[in-house]
Amino acid sequence: MKKLHYLVIIFFATFANAQNVQSLSKNISLDFKLSSDGKPTYSVSYKSKICINESTLGITLKDIPALESGFSVINQEIKTVDQPWHPVLGEQSTIENKYNQITYFLLQKETGRKINIVFKVYNEGVAFRYEFPKQENLNYFIISDEKTQFNLVGNHKTFWIPGDFDSQEYAYNETLLSEINTENINKNNGIGVKSIAGKYTVQAPLMMKSNEGIYINIFEAAVVNYPVMHLDLIPNQYKLTSHLVPNAIGDKAYLQTPAVSPWRTIMMSDDARDIVGSKMILNLNEPCKLDDTSWIKPMKYVGIWWEMHVGKSTWDYAGSQNAQNAADGTMKPSGKHGATTENTKRYIDFAAKNGFDGVLVEGWNVGWEDWFGNWKEDVFDFTTPYPDYNLKEINDYAKSKGVKMIMHHETSGSVANYERHLDRALNLMKEYGYPAAKSGYVGKIIPRGEFHDGQTMVNHFNFVARRFADYKLMINSHESSRPTGYSRTYPNYIAAEAARGNEFNAWSIGNPPMHETILPFTRLLGGPMDYTPGIFEIKMSYYDPKKTEQVHTTLAKQLALYVTMYSPLQMAADLIENYEKYPDAFQFIKDVAVDWQDSKYLEAEPGDYLTVVRKEKNGERWFLGAITDENARTTEIKLDFLTPNKKYQAIIYQDSTTAHWKNNPISYVIKTIQVTSKSKIKLNLANGGGTAISFKPIN
Amino acid sequence: MKKLHYLVIIFFATFANAQNVQSLSKNISLDFKLSSDGKPTYSVSYKSKICINESTLGITLKDIPALESGFSVINQEIKTVDQPWHPVLGEQSTIENKYNQITYFLLQKETGRKINIVFKVYNEGVAFRYEFPKQENLNYFIISDEKTQFNLVGNHKTFWIPGDFDSQEYAYNETLLSEINTENINKNNGIGVKSIAGKYTVQAPLMMKSNEGIYINIFEAAVVNYPVMHLDLIPNQYKLTSHLVPNAIGDKAYLQTPAVSPWRTIMMSDDARDIVGSKMILNLNEPCKLDDTSWIKPMKYVGIWWEMHVGKSTWDYAGSQNAQNAADGTMKPSGKHGATTENTKRYIDFAAKNGFDGVLVEGWNVGWEDWFGNWKEDVFDFTTPYPDYNLKEINDYAKSKGVKMIMHHETSGSVANYERHLDRALNLMKEYGYPAAKSGYVGKIIPRGEFHDGQTMVNHFNFVARRFADYKLMINSHESSRPTGYSRTYPNYIAAEAARGNEFNAWSIGNPPMHETILPFTRLLGGPMDYTPGIFEIKMSYYDPKKTEQVHTTLAKQLALYVTMYSPLQMAADLIENYEKYPDAFQFIKDVAVDWQDSKYLEAEPGDYLTVVRKEKNGERWFLGAITDENARTTEIKLDFLTPNKKYQAIIYQDSTTAHWKNNPISYVIKTIQVTSKSKIKLNLANGGGTAISFKPIN
Repeated sequence: MKKLHYLVIIFFATFANAQNVQSLSKNISLDFKLSSDGKPTYSVSYKSKICINESTLGITLKDIPALESGFSVINQEIKTVDQPWHPVLGEQSTIENKYNQITYFLLQKETGRKINIVFKVYNEGVAFRYEFPKQENLNYFIISDEKTQFNLVGNHKTFWIPGDFDSQEYAYNETLLSEINTENINKNNGIGVKSIAGKYTVQAPLMMKSNEGIYINIFEAAVVNYPVMHLDLIPNQYKLTSHLVPNAIGDKAYLQTPAVSPWRTIMMSDDARDIVGSKMILNLNEPCKLDDTSWIKPMKYVGIWWEMHVGKSTWDYAGSQNAQNAADGTMKPSGKHGATTENTKRYIDFAAKNGFDGVLVEGWNVGWEDWFGNWKEDVFDFTTPYPDYNLKEINDYAKSKGVKMIMHHETSGSVANYERHLDRALNLMKEYGYPAAKSGYVGKIIPRGEFHDGQTMVNHFNFVARRFADYKLMINSHESSRPTGYSRTYPNYIAAEAARGNEFNAWSIGNPPMHETILPFTRLLGGPMDYTPGIFEIKMSYYDPKKTEQVHTTLAKQLALYVTMYSPLQMAADLIENYEKYPDAFQFIKDVAVDWQDSKYLEAEPGDYLTVVRKEKNGERWFLGAITDENARTTEIKLDFLTPNKKYQAIIYQDSTTAHWKNNPISYVIKTIQVTSKSKIKLNLANGGGTAISFKPIN
Repeated sequence: MKKLHYLVIIFFATFANAQNVQSLSKNISLDFKLSSDGKPTYSVSYKSKICINESTLGITLKDIPALESGFSVINQEIKTVDQPWHPVLGEQSTIENKYNQITYFLLQKETGRKINIVFKVYNEGVAFRYEFPKQENLNYFIISDEKTQFNLVGNHKTFWIPGDFDSQEYAYNETLLSEINTENINKNNGIGVKSIAGKYTVQAPLMMKSNEGIYINIFEAAVVNYPVMHLDLIPNQYKLTSHLVPNAIGDKAYLQTPAVSPWRTIMMSDDARDIVGSKMILNLNEPCKLDDTSWIKPMKYVGIWWEMHVGKSTWDYAGSQNAQNAADGTMKPSGKHGATTENTKRYIDFAAKNGFDGVLVEGWNVGWEDWFGNWKEDVFDFTTPYPDYNLKEINDYAKSKGVKMIMHHETSGSVANYERHLDRALNLMKEYGYPAAKSGYVGKIIPRGEFHDGQTMVNHFNFVARRFADYKLMINSHESSRPTGYSRTYPNYIAAEAARGNEFNAWSIGNPPMHETILPFTRLLGGPMDYTPGIFEIKMSYYDPKKTEQVHTTLAKQLALYVTMYSPLQMAADLIENYEKYPDAFQFIKDVAVDWQDSKYLEAEPGDYLTVVRKEKNGERWFLGAITDENARTTEIKLDFLTPNKKYQAIIYQDSTTAHWKNNPISYVIKTIQVTSKSKIKLNLANGGGTAISFKPIN
């Protein structure tokens, strides 16, 4: 990796009663002080207005005194850092990483124990974490709770989902802080395993907007060897406190000094684009630990997947969803099995013909007869195909067509079983030349009593990324804990789901039109999401007249999502026969890049709209994605991001004038025009609609 | 495997109100009936005297109605079985397996659920289990408790240890049933992790003797996918009830129909030799599932192990027992590390010179600096040697000397970590040609909240045996749940510890002289134990004058243990330099066989004495072991087991007339005499002493 320039200015200062550090922009100001009883506290201002009121910091420990009070500052260190870096895959080829940092070295006299609190003040927010340095009086320890406060100053508009230990697959609620109540949500939402922590517990990232128009986002970064942090609200006081996800016996984290907590982040700006475009979460993670990253490649793929969601085929061979039938050898094929050699070849042919990199096949391996809802431990072995799925034949065929197969590892939540088989599973992938796998964690976790978001599972997801890296394989995890930037450190962790994906539209109340305007302000801050866009047959009545489910979108919006939902791994999720019916619209999916030289967020309002343009890496094409919520929207975009004095062919994929996500979703218009950097384009987005544009230089 | 003759007579009968089945010997009689409210009950008589009073049977389930009452018998099946088999390794080349079996097919009308209760009546006892057949109304289910009663009829003398979810490493208490109280035992007994279930909870096998001289043993067999069963006592009523070991969240077992419980066993006889020599537990397990067992070989071995227990060397390289020192790269060798290349070569030389098959080396791999007591997850990787241990050099050297290295896998209780690394660990073993490993589970289990004896860990130990078998490797587990005959099914599960082994004598209150007279009636019923006998330097003051610990034995008794404590894997546990000081006594350890054509228990009284003779497999030599408790003992043994009309040279290794386990333990006499099958030999065992004899035919 090329050495980047690196600027650090360090100076030490004696600690006054209170201390102030500003962002380089001077917009953000952090204050730290100890209370009279030695409790660490902090507050944050944005443009001289308090954004986080005085909030305490602290950790309680199992069986030994808490690290909450009785502290004195024994030293402090201030530095300015400017360390840009080049992601292997990303929204930009270079990511800026500039901040002022202050570390407070604290001593708890009564116990002789030391902790450090480190603040990094970026232009778009503040991050801080606890450090537990190596010391005689603290070696192994168990965190029973973290008492980090975020005391907000008003009854902000908030986009929230319940604080659930097992799932983030919720649609967002848009209410005032004071109106948060997880008991009021529609629980009939298609989520398989729900473990909601409390009435007033919500998940981070928590996106808010104050009455004064300040956007505030609370999240965390670099969750490594630590549980996920949810947030407990005291509704009328607008106070949030960290709520760590427990393990099977109620403990939160097992650590050994030297150790660090994840970073707690508070982003704020009066321009929403600063939040949605922030790379703070990635910046707060460790740099890439892989020497060789040449094998990490972006991928556009199709797959045998949506056809199971729409009910055309089944994951399991016997179709009975009952493994009792398998146990005595009477498993009979239902004829509806999706993952057959024949069907897979059809997808390989399509991928080859249309320039896709890969084909994902779910339901290829034995175990799907009773994978779901049984808390079964020995459910899959990750190496045994069904009788109608010929591993060798398929992989040979894919190779002959220049297409890569994407492996699928559904764990059913039985993580102990997956870890037991992981080396074997990865050896199989290497044997057949699979470059990547999609994993799944639908179900209650085994080891039983653990949650998807506890330290054990956080460690599992990170372990899997590292183990895949050992084999030079990429991993895309579904139903994992939500990423917090680990893909910077292990860029083979190419994508994750960890939010409510597109498939919920196929068989549940689905995702409302505003859903995709919020995800970039929340889930996507932590890393790429495999949202699986590109559904052209939007209404499920297409498959079965009795069905009323649909994707809450227009077709044009599905195209725009390839730009607005950043991921270096993008699926064209619909059935390939549906793409063949709309070849003109499909052209955009064929064209769109998945790895980027640069990205610009032109317009952004969480819950309302988003307009992004991105320039492909190693090329001169630009792509625009614009989406709106349930409201139609008209806007005008300046094309000043284009290279001056260069002509471009712009192909515009837009909603027709009569398009509407509910009444007329597949109605779109495609037009081709010439533009330059001085041009403006007027966008007309239907209700629940979007626009996608490709810009290609004309020689 | 050779086909054995197989005799089964089946007949069906209609169910009367009560039903009686007898053993083939007619000594044992089982009665089964349903109570007025449809509760299954049973009772057992021995020689027409009630041995188990009417006791109920039942299972409670999580979230759904119990399988306890409301049953009717819808069918029953009786058969007589005679299925002898040949163990791969064992005490006999042929094991008799004869019993009468009755199965009651029960229907619970209210729920439509069915269970079967199967009884096997052997000549030495009764076994029964619950079967959960495949059925529509019961698929996946969770056992919240098992309510199996064993209602005894008197205040028997009992050899008991506390019902502990994490350990069986207790010395036995010999009291009346009514005197059982786990709070009264000495807890300062050197056991690392204790989880005692209750004041009146004890472990099986529970060995008892009635006032009338009936020996009664309650145990279980074929614990597979089920937790260990402890026993709750109502002291004044002499009633025992099954107490299943819970998992992290209090559940007992996760099953799917068709499923079976382990066998619950009640052995009884007026001759203690029938109990100690019983193969009922093995018989109740599934036959061997391995097609090729040619790679499963008995082993006699020495190793780098006892020197750590006596304090001569350390397991860890840095000697600090603090991995903080390792974390920052400052790990410095202490100079006391036992597992060095040089020391290992010394053991290899010794093994080669004295005809031992293998050398075990503990402490060879990185992680021992803070392996103990920290509940640390990523403690060992099972593949990285310390810098002073050259894997290749050692294995090449061993190969050149015709000696096999025995791998060591200490898990520190971090089972999740072990399973994650198991394939890698076993690949390493294959790479270097290790035929077997010893594993260890000292510490609290990870996944946290699990116990050594829960279903999860039972499954782990059985999984490890199977996974080792995949690689044609043998496994000897220490601190596992106690075996219940799984070595019949996977004979590569060559031995286990799972009881208080010899090493406790080195650094704790140790094992009283009667200890080894009880283990064959308890722990050894379930399979071979790696007790690690052969300690010649009996008093720890030899190593450090300040030490008062000692093995509670004479030297001659240590020799006798090679015969009385059956195992196809036997360690000569002492330092090799100690053997070099007593070459005459050591000759017996060199000579003694470890796999047997036949075994005869000549004398047996639990807690007092045991005399066993065994004939080697593929040879004509016999070996005798006789041990006593703290009392001296004189007895006369008829040699009528020897082949008639053949002369034998008998080398007798016996306590000197002044020997005494405490005052004079290393005092022994060796004499050689000629004997025939008509000879008698008088044995004089010192207090805590023993006699070992080898019989070799004279041409």
